[in-house]
Amino acid sequence: MTRAEVCAFLRAHDDYVILTHRRPDGDTIGSAAALCLGLRAMGKRAGVLCNQQFTPRFAPFLAGLVCEGAEENATVISADIASTGLLSFDAEGLAHRIALAIDHHGTNSLTAPKLVEADKAACGEIIFDLLTMLGVTVTKEMADCLYVAISTDTGCFKYSNTSAHTLHTAAALVEAGADTYPINKLFFDTKSFARLQLESRLTASMTLYAGGLVGLCSLPNSWLSELAVTEDDIDSISGFARSVEGVEIGIMLREVEGGNGKISLRTGPAYNAAELCGVLGGGGHAAAAGATVPGGIEGARCAILSVLRDRGILKD
Amino acid sequence: MTRAEVCAFLRAHDDYVILTHRRPDGDTIGSAAALCLGLRAMGKRAGVLCNQQFTPRFAPFLAGLVCEGAEENATVISADIASTGLLSFDAEGLAHRIALAIDHHGTNSLTAPKLVEADKAACGEIIFDLLTMLGVTVTKEMADCLYVAISTDTGCFKYSNTSAHTLHTAAALVEAGADTYPINKLFFDTKSFARLQLESRLTASMTLYAGGLVGLCSLPNSWLSELAVTEDDIDSISGFARSVEGVEIGIMLREVEGGNGKISLRTGPAYNAAELCGVLGGGGHAAAAGATVPGGIEGARCAILSVLRDRGILKD
Repeated sequence: MTRAEVCAFLRAHDDYVILTHRRPDGDTIGSAAALCLGLRAMGKRAGVLCNQQFTPRFAPFLAGLVCEGAEENATVISADIASTGLLSFDAEGLAHRIALAIDHHGTNSLTAPKLVEADKAACGEIIFDLLTMLGVTVTKEMADCLYVAISTDTGCFKYSNTSAHTLHTAAALVEAGADTYPINKLFFDTKSFARLQLESRLTASMTLYAGGLVGLCSLPNSWLSELAVTEDDIDSISGFARSVEGVEIGIMLREVEGGNGKISLRTGPAYNAAELCGVLGGGGHAAAAGATVPGGIEGARCAILSVLRDRGILKD
Repeated sequence: MTRAEVCAFLRAHDDYVILTHRRPDGDTIGSAAALCLGLRAMGKRAGVLCNQQFTPRFAPFLAGLVCEGAEENATVISADIASTGLLSFDAEGLAHRIALAIDHHGTNSLTAPKLVEADKAACGEIIFDLLTMLGVTVTKEMADCLYVAISTDTGCFKYSNTSAHTLHTAAALVEAGADTYPINKLFFDTKSFARLQLESRLTASMTLYAGGLVGLCSLPNSWLSELAVTEDDIDSISGFARSVEGVEIGIMLREVEGGNGKISLRTGPAYNAAELCGVLGGGGHAAAAGATVPGGIEGARCAILSVLRDRGILKD
């Protein structure tokens, strides 16, 4: 569909339910919430379908918008959902009812009528343009939601997907009243003291090999209880060693069930994490993979170092 | 001076030397470099005065621009320099020769003719607007320098000083060809191992006051030598305590020349860092300010805690 057709479609119906994706992030939530607010500003009924995976920090942006189900006559829209398999668990029965899919994933495989703009860093950029085309005055509330969408999908404008359009949209959102600093602080600038203490211990335990090309950290479970670390606190911790300057192969070792050791590998473009973990019976993606081996952290350390030695990445 | 007067001034002379500030950061360097390139594009002679404190990671943005001194007839411009005391060591003898100061610090105390726009997050925003007004075509090279200026002074658009103007300028720089991703990766996405080790020590030494509202860190110079920390490694370290969840007043104490202690303050919106540091003879911005007091780190600790106690922020 063209943007004009999408605008005509949005004007033509009166009762909307908007879907978000599984493991919902800032873009799917912010896009759905802003679209919902925009449709309401146009005098429509609209709600964001509840998603059991919504996490507390997005609650302020969803307040008053969430609905429990899609009535028979409601028009169903998906926001930032690239395939049927990525529908939230709460929306699994609604795949066939999606009447409009708005997305920025070039790989979008939904069969619904859709507007996919793969040159956009975030679905939120598309929603902003649509609201503007529809003549909706973007309120502070909508602007906050769209800023969450755009900033989280670009790592606060740090990732390579950030375009001039992304930055112009962000500027327009600030002009519309978005209160960006609390959002930036929440998503990009704050670590719990427990997380910092954990990073301290990881740094102290980090070993660099091959002149700093390989970085290895261990995270014993005892640290998690000692520091009262939550699941939020260990978000993305597997990439810790890889964030060190020069480290192209970052390794995190953890204790898992049955006395086993879990290896998480994060690699730069010159190395294939999935292939290296494959040697140990694991797998994953080129840049991020894992494997589980016997012998706890020590067993994991020996196993992965042995693989790296076999490849000539480490010399004895 | 008005912007128009500054443009007339820049058109009127032919040989410029541009000064940067002590402990030069991305904004002073990027602003000076872009202005230098812009003046050259206008057919002028221009150079950025060497600064013994330039660090390696800024070298690509200064390549071919640095001059060793200011000839007698050269017109001297300062970029992002708020006071005589902040002139680079190499420029100390040139204070009386500054013919134009371009800056965004509201507290600018230079007596030279000046253009100060305190509503700008970075001096680079002003330079971009001036180049545009002068009819200079902003090249990729200039855009890269200005992007360094603006992104580093806003923590990649994360800090509260980021305005719609900041984001519009960044968008215009992308349109002008700025290669932003390598810059973002260099400045915002990797840490040296020495930096991580330093953060470990800062975490271990951090004291939280007022139920975690105030966070205080000290950074003795001995740590810098023990960890072989470079100036690049300690970039933005002043904000470390403020990055802890719940900390609204982040304090960093360092040892400086003459046995003095340097207080760096980073505050959330409810507190005014410049005003708090002003009590101790310092200054800066509402969210980021500093002051230098006698007595090294201990003197600095007592001084700032006493200010916070006087304000009722800390109870005894």
